[in-house]
Amino acid sequence: MKTLSILGSTGSIGTATLDVVAASPGAYRVVALAAGRNLARICAQAAAVRPELVVVGDAASASAIAGRLPAGTRVLHGRDGLIAAARHDDADMVVCGLVGALGVEPTYAAVDAGKDVALANKEALVAAGAFVTERAAETGAAILPVDSEHNALHQCLRGEDPATIAALWLTASGGPFRGYDRGALAAVTPAQALRHPTWVMGPKITIDSATLMNKGLEVIEARWLFDVGPDRIRIVVHPKSVVHSLVEFADGSFKAQLGVTDMRHPIQYALTHPSREPGMLRRFDLVAAGSLTFEEPDTESFPCLGLAYEALRLGGAAPAVLNAANEIAVEAFLAGRAGFLDIPETIRKTLDRHAGLPSATLDDILAADRLARQAATHALASGVKP
Amino acid sequence: MKTLSILGSTGSIGTATLDVVAASPGAYRVVALAAGRNLARICAQAAAVRPELVVVGDAASASAIAGRLPAGTRVLHGRDGLIAAARHDDADMVVCGLVGALGVEPTYAAVDAGKDVALANKEALVAAGAFVTERAAETGAAILPVDSEHNALHQCLRGEDPATIAALWLTASGGPFRGYDRGALAAVTPAQALRHPTWVMGPKITIDSATLMNKGLEVIEARWLFDVGPDRIRIVVHPKSVVHSLVEFADGSFKAQLGVTDMRHPIQYALTHPSREPGMLRRFDLVAAGSLTFEEPDTESFPCLGLAYEALRLGGAAPAVLNAANEIAVEAFLAGRAGFLDIPETIRKTLDRHAGLPSATLDDILAADRLARQAATHALASGVKP
Repeated sequence: MKTLSILGSTGSIGTATLDVVAASPGAYRVVALAAGRNLARICAQAAAVRPELVVVGDAASASAIAGRLPAGTRVLHGRDGLIAAARHDDADMVVCGLVGALGVEPTYAAVDAGKDVALANKEALVAAGAFVTERAAETGAAILPVDSEHNALHQCLRGEDPATIAALWLTASGGPFRGYDRGALAAVTPAQALRHPTWVMGPKITIDSATLMNKGLEVIEARWLFDVGPDRIRIVVHPKSVVHSLVEFADGSFKAQLGVTDMRHPIQYALTHPSREPGMLRRFDLVAAGSLTFEEPDTESFPCLGLAYEALRLGGAAPAVLNAANEIAVEAFLAGRAGFLDIPETIRKTLDRHAGLPSATLDDILAADRLARQAATHALASGVKP
Repeated sequence: MKTLSILGSTGSIGTATLDVVAASPGAYRVVALAAGRNLARICAQAAAVRPELVVVGDAASASAIAGRLPAGTRVLHGRDGLIAAARHDDADMVVCGLVGALGVEPTYAAVDAGKDVALANKEALVAAGAFVTERAAETGAAILPVDSEHNALHQCLRGEDPATIAALWLTASGGPFRGYDRGALAAVTPAQALRHPTWVMGPKITIDSATLMNKGLEVIEARWLFDVGPDRIRIVVHPKSVVHSLVEFADGSFKAQLGVTDMRHPIQYALTHPSREPGMLRRFDLVAAGSLTFEEPDTESFPCLGLAYEALRLGGAAPAVLNAANEIAVEAFLAGRAGFLDIPETIRKTLDRHAGLPSATLDDILAADRLARQAATHALASGVKP
């Protein structure tokens, strides 16, 4: 039986993880659940899995649910609570489904404690990939990617020598605005951007998919997961999202992973690795998948892609700054305080000023993240034409 | 440096192998070349690679070329010559590109002598898969498939537990007559059948591709290479031949291998395995590949597929009988002595009568092969309406 600590349990990754757990009776025990503000859902989850620890966003929430948890379940809150859940003595594996840079410290804490991590929070690697992967190598913690693209790459790289990787090809659906030019993009609304053509995900990642920043963050994530430089990480638009990603090898051969677009698949893969277990999912039907097409990405209409490559090449704090500015800009777009094109614009401005912030320690990175948020907020406030 | 014995050196696999050798100076030494009747070509090959042994089809051919070989190159002929080349003391690996059941004994001899085999001759496994694979397991000889489909499966299975294979999916181009009904097929000519849409191969395998018997033989080959039963070997028509085959795993995940349609790729893979070396081939361009489609095979118009599954399920000598009858019928079709639909008809008749022949030893299999050839010849002579 594998014991799990699930960070972000009420989000899309967390609920999908609990689906996988429920479908495999006897295979898993959930020892900790951590979430933010969705108290009704985390109480229901706690009643079902009876964890040792529940973590919520703040002290008020912790007080509010104290009486609604199973006997013997402790409750903690905030950053310290997340770290406690990430380092939980009884957890074999930490599932990290937190959203945004909030995932950096708990992910680092988990690998620092030698826990294997099923990682859906790409921002932990985007902002602090060097620190997280170096510490994981020291403690022997495995990082198993849950992002469908990286999960696909992980599958394609089984049994292969990393020295023979010629390129990693991340597939992109292209998002809801594939084919739009900048003029059309200037007018799109949050409601339109939230309609992802192939995947059902949370709002932040869905907007990132619409700007293609999601793919940009994945490029940086891939660099750290597979130790491959930016020149060997490529993006190809594949609207059906059937091919989840591909690896090109030195001998010219390509390997691809294909399947249904359901996050429970990569989650289960990460949980059962290196084994593969009969799944809970409908079977993938290759014939019904129809015709599969691949296109070059439109880097002109979607400048976030180029910004991510630029931040990766700059290195240091630049990816953390990119990510922080993106989070602020996406939040503003979702709240109606910024237009779609203000997202790359805000990132551009923030990156230009703050890419060179210190990055010698994880604390430096966290400081860069905070400063970039302030700078992005300022840039938005001063630059947005209402 | 790896030493090679190349059986069928003047055919499409043999010449492609020598291309790969020539493109990798210092990586290989060719110690033996074996061919049938193409004396001019084998003499040119021998002059280039200076092997220790050359084998040709018969004594007259051997005499004819004796004076045209490099100093120190021995010449042998016929079955014994092929076996000598297959067991050559100085060969690390035998590349078997022989056509048809002629490949059975040399392939067995190679694995019996503990040689790794790069196997393009699928008939060796179709007719005698049980004997060849059992003996290879005993001597530790590796069988590396050169057929692009099985090579793709081999690549997809690296690092995977065979117990997690849910299905092997062999892709079929569908051949030049995809979409034809039986009426249209009755009238097709050898010249039409020899125009394969995606692969350049020898005449026998090209006709097998047109009848889909090639795919049927590959099903049987896959059964022995990967120890997977017929119910878990599936065929899907993929006209572009870009996806060379796929594996479906227990957890619902599919892995595929993709690349250019050039036999030098799988040959090089087999020669360098487990390493992958920078290739001599043009790069594969996923975007330029255009749209990839997958269809169910038409088993009604192409009954050879069903016949192959039937022979595999019957077991024993049935696959050897199927293969022998197919070779005779294809020869007759190429010579204009039989129609396209006489191919499955001849196999059907031969299989009905002789599937139950003894199969306890390799000699039994070879006897079944001979008897089936006579029976198929007889069936053709009596059944063909000119």
